[in-house]
Order: sequence, then C-alpha cells, then structure tokens
Amino acid sequence: MILEEIGRPYDPAPLDFKNNAQYEPGYVAINPKSKVPALLRDDGTLLTEYPVIAMWLAKTNPQAGLVPVDLEGETRCAEFLDYVCGTVHPQGFTRQSRPNRFALRAEDEPAVVAQGRELAVKYMNVIDSGWRGDTWVLPGGYSIADSALFFIEHWAARRFNIPLPPRLATHFAAMLARPAVKRTLELEGLPT
Amino acid sequence: MILEEIGRPYDPAPLDFKNNAQYEPGYVAINPKSKVPALLRDDGTLLTEYPVIAMWLAKTNPQAGLVPVDLEGETRCAEFLDYVCGTVHPQGFTRQSRPNRFALRAEDEPAVVAQGRELAVKYMNVIDSGWRGDTWVLPGGYSIADSALFFIEHWAARRFNIPLPPRLATHFAAMLARPAVKRTLELEGLPT
Repeated sequence: MILEEIGRPYDPAPLDFKNNAQYEPGYVAINPKSKVPALLRDDGTLLTEYPVIAMWLAKTNPQAGLVPVDLEGETRCAEFLDYVCGTVHPQGFTRQSRPNRFALRAEDEPAVVAQGRELAVKYMNVIDSGWRGDTWVLPGGYSIADSALFFIEHWAARRFNIPLPPRLATHFAAMLARPAVKRTLELEGLPT
Repeated sequence: MILEEIGRPYDPAPLDFKNNAQYEPGYVAINPKSKVPALLRDDGTLLTEYPVIAMWLAKTNPQAGLVPVDLEGETRCAEFLDYVCGTVHPQGFTRQSRPNRFALRAEDEPAVVAQGRELAVKYMNVIDSGWRGDTWVLPGGYSIADSALFFIEHWAARRFNIPLPPRLATHFAAMLARPAVKRTLELEGLPT
C-alpha cells in the first residue's frame, strides 16, 4: 500500500503463511526471522519490520509526504506504528488468525480466539480514545501510520466481524476511498 | 540506562507488574496502553514504546552519540530495536516471565515457559548469526540498540539461565563494564 502511494514499481512476493512457507529454507535464507514484510531493496539488501520498512520508504521518498518532517511528528508517527505492529497485531489479531501459536491444546483454540478478540477490541478503543488527528491518524495529514491502522481495521471489519469504534470506522471508510488502497486490495484479490 | 548514558537527571517511577499495577486507574490515566516504559517529558507530554522513547532520547541528545546520524545507520538501529522489543521480548521472554498471559489453564504454564525458552533461544541465535557490528550491535559503535539487547541478555543469563550465543556473551560482558549500566543495575537493586 505504501509503495502504491509512492508510485514506485515493485514486485510483490506473497508468502503462504497457512502452509508455514515462512519456515521453509528458501525463505529463511532470505529472512532468518521468518517474518513478513521483508523488503528487498534496489541495492540488494533486505530490510525487515513493518515500522522500519514503512519509515524508510517514507523518508527515501519525501515527495510522497508520508511522514512528518519534524522530529515530534515523526516520533508520534513511529509511536503509533509500534503500537499497531508490536501490540495490536501480535497480541490481539494473531490470537484470532493463528490460535495454534498460543493454544497448547487444539481444544483451547476457540478460547484463544475469544481472548484475542477481547484484546483487539480493547486496543482499538485505546486508539479511538487517544486519536490525535482529524480524518487521518496524525494531525499533519495522511501518513504511514494510516496504512498500518488500515490493515488492523480491515481484519476487524472484514475478517473477524468486530465493530470499529467511531474514529476508526470513519478512518476505514476514508482509506477505502483512496486509489492506492483500492489498487492494493485488488492486487490481493480482496473486495475494494 | 539510556538516560544514564546521556547523563540527564530523571525520576524513576517503578511499576509493580507482579500485582498488575499497570491496570490500576492511576496508571491507566497516565498511559491507557498499560505498558512500560512510558516517559513523561519536560513539556508534560507522555511518550510510549521502548523503540520510540529510545530513538527520541538519542535524537534530542545528539552529543551522546546514541544513534547513527545517517539514514541507513538509523534504519538498521530501528530494525534491531523492533525485533528485540516487538518479537524477542513479547514472544520469547514474556512467555517465561508471565505464562499466565498465554496459558488458559494454570497446569499449562510450565509448557508455555518451555515454549518461551525455545523461542528465546531461536531469536537470540538469529541475532547472533546476523551480527553486523564488532563488540556493539551496530558497526558504527555503541547505540540504543545495545541497551535493548542488554535487557534480553540480562533476563536470559541471570533470570532464566539460558546460555548466551557467543556474540551476545561478549556483548553482555562489555555492557556490564559500562559505568551507566552499573549505575542502572544498582538503581534496580540488581547485582552488577
């Protein structure tokens, strides 16, 4: 989505998480962390971690205006990214999408999903209550923080049927209207 | 530890996690995320998320030289922080320190601890294999990435009796020799 906003050509390389392709030797040789996203840059080096890839793309493509240029704005942007990528996603949503990573017994998986849902609701309410921007996450306008929030909203609204708090519902609708978001969803074979 | 390296005065405010003080109204009013660390800045605003607080402290105190000044160095520094704070700590070590957050039945807690230990070993080996620096994490010298790695090493070596891989063992010893690290351990009432 960020590369679509920037308008730079890229080659997507989807990974089959359902079949644990991230642990296969081919991918481990690329990224020993077995995580996504991973960005193979033009110079051949690999960059990992969503917040870091997002920030690097934003800073190396300043014309796209995807991160505030002042330190305080950049700091709040990074803070938002870290909460979404370090807490909301792995604690709230991964429990719902991959309960087997948490449940020690298959019979406990529904309880893990329920726990994840409860956490996801709580985290989204924290984001809603602490909202600093207008339509977008940051007061300065659209940024990489919005793309991070979108994937959480998309899972909540379209995959797990969790109602979005008011600010997030407005944000999700505004995101869906962006051409770059539409293109990304189409690329993923998802409804726009 | 970072503030000790910088040499700025600060007021530590320890939080009793064992008794869930992070969920009490007093702390929730300060930080609705119920997470630590949280930094109350001189202007009265709160900053959260370890990687973000660390980066902000480093950038607003450039004389301490705690983050590379070039974008690529800063990016690798942020990437390291995110792996430690977003994966190694919450997936590997929190399973060992707070198994009740993962185990749905008290009887399953030892299995969660074992799972956490296995993940922690795997993650530390990923760090060891991907080591880019000499003594310190980054080739450019000591940085906030070292302070993040230290708290993982400290838990592994001194709390959970997990042997450190070679690079991390050397790093841990070098960290223990730093005056700022000694002062921090003393402040925490821990052996230096």
